[in-house]
Amino acid sequence: MHYYPNPAEGLDIPAVNDAIEEAFAEHGRGKVQMPPKVYITFDHGDFRTMPAYIPSLDIGGVKIVNVHPGNPSSGLPTVMALTVIISPETGIPEAILNATSLTDLRTGAAGAVAAKYLCSRKTVTLGMVGSGRQARAQVDAIAAELSISEIRVWSRTERNAHAFCKRYKDHECRSMSLERVADCDLLVTTTPSREPLIRDAWIRDGTHINAIGADAPGKQELDPAILTRATVFIDDPAQAVHSGEINVPIRDGIYTADRIAGTLGEVVLGKKGRTNDREITVFDSTGLAIQDLAIAEIAMKSGNFINLRFP
Amino acid sequence: MHYYPNPAEGLDIPAVNDAIEEAFAEHGRGKVQMPPKVYITFDHGDFRTMPAYIPSLDIGGVKIVNVHPGNPSSGLPTVMALTVIISPETGIPEAILNATSLTDLRTGAAGAVAAKYLCSRKTVTLGMVGSGRQARAQVDAIAAELSISEIRVWSRTERNAHAFCKRYKDHECRSMSLERVADCDLLVTTTPSREPLIRDAWIRDGTHINAIGADAPGKQELDPAILTRATVFIDDPAQAVHSGEINVPIRDGIYTADRIAGTLGEVVLGKKGRTNDREITVFDSTGLAIQDLAIAEIAMKSGNFINLRFP
Repeated sequence: MHYYPNPAEGLDIPAVNDAIEEAFAEHGRGKVQMPPKVYITFDHGDFRTMPAYIPSLDIGGVKIVNVHPGNPSSGLPTVMALTVIISPETGIPEAILNATSLTDLRTGAAGAVAAKYLCSRKTVTLGMVGSGRQARAQVDAIAAELSISEIRVWSRTERNAHAFCKRYKDHECRSMSLERVADCDLLVTTTPSREPLIRDAWIRDGTHINAIGADAPGKQELDPAILTRATVFIDDPAQAVHSGEINVPIRDGIYTADRIAGTLGEVVLGKKGRTNDREITVFDSTGLAIQDLAIAEIAMKSGNFINLRFP
Repeated sequence: MHYYPNPAEGLDIPAVNDAIEEAFAEHGRGKVQMPPKVYITFDHGDFRTMPAYIPSLDIGGVKIVNVHPGNPSSGLPTVMALTVIISPETGIPEAILNATSLTDLRTGAAGAVAAKYLCSRKTVTLGMVGSGRQARAQVDAIAAELSISEIRVWSRTERNAHAFCKRYKDHECRSMSLERVADCDLLVTTTPSREPLIRDAWIRDGTHINAIGADAPGKQELDPAILTRATVFIDDPAQAVHSGEINVPIRDGIYTADRIAGTLGEVVLGKKGRTNDREITVFDSTGLAIQDLAIAEIAMKSGNFINLRFP
């Protein structure tokens, strides 16, 4: 059994994007096993168990990931993850991966795949709401699929927005108001907000939005009027209804699950997609266990590991 | 993060039995979180993901365990397991344990707790059906709770029965026919049978039976007439109906879930139990995630570990 302490180091982003795209394609074909995430609730957070199997990649396993919002005050990340890889042939645990950074990367890759298929143009102005780890992962992955002419970023903390712009100075990155950030071709929201930040009036026709931040009941970043005006794609129906951007509007009776246009897997397969340049499209990402397996498969090829005695 | 390659080594069996008993008590009090096991199915086997949280022990985590019946032909165990321990306070993965042997021990401990509360006497003749790892774990754990005057064992392979008797020669162990093995105070079945092995006519009044082997749909070891005649206790209602000894009789309409007398947790708490010395009692064990956490908690105190870099 191998342990990979730092499997995200040196990963090739275009290869990750391709692997994630293929995982979504298999999901669209109905050829994966992925039961719903299982939640265990603690006083100060929770952890989720995410088992899956992708037969075409011959990889099975489970990601275990926590969310403890108070962690940063004690110097730990809010989200930490492990992925355990199980051999389909014998059931032996083959590998354990530190999956904290891999979780960011695979989420970024899903955003890049969505943007590649759903943006109305190949060269985009990119609006970023939030400037943390997820935001960086989105920009890095999207830059491998589209040409970015300009980045507009908003952060609750102005200093973080400036650090973000310094990192992406080659992409003409500037800190702006939420309204000006929303005036873009590709808008990406990565905050833990529980109230809409982005107003419907700010979104112009033809915009594509990656709604990344909402991943638990009660979280939302977009004015629900954007969802009713847009064509909405999700990663997985059950997860999106439970914890995606659409969860609060559905709870409140403003949106219904039958309005969902399709899954990202169907988009990748060409069964669903943008129909014209004026349409507003939304990709509502919650994060799938098959993404964790697909990125683990790549990381295990290139990463350094140590041997652990088992059985 | 610590990795325990061999955490079963040197474990104190009475202490394990006590910890498992306390876990069942907490289960009986309704004070644990334990969602249903999640199954992923491969061509040659499956793996199950078993998350849980026991607040009173301040321990949370998940066991990942496979069942690949063809493994012994390639020198691997049929069942292998890992347990990942998650800190309730921060969500960080604190430990990973090789849980293959721990799985046997925690199942043996549940059998011992059931026998301690449900046997009609403190000195017993013990009938063992099956002589493998699970059978040894049952005898070792039961011997810490009851006095064993004699062991009668049956195995499909006569040679295995003799090896078993050699191991337990201090307990007057002898290999016998199924019918004579069933003539005992405490009968323990640990086979992977998919057809009843034990006939109703062989079971005398006052016998307690630990039905351990059935842990998946389609498996059974007892004549269903024994279940309708006996007072049946289970570990967890949902799991027992799905995959315990009662699963086939329920599927066939011979037994109904409303006949279940109670859980082992309720027995430990004194809310349910044997009512007289002539009653036949059955404990239908499927194996609970809280047992895995309870034994991990003990193993982490005494076991040797290596440090792994995380996060």
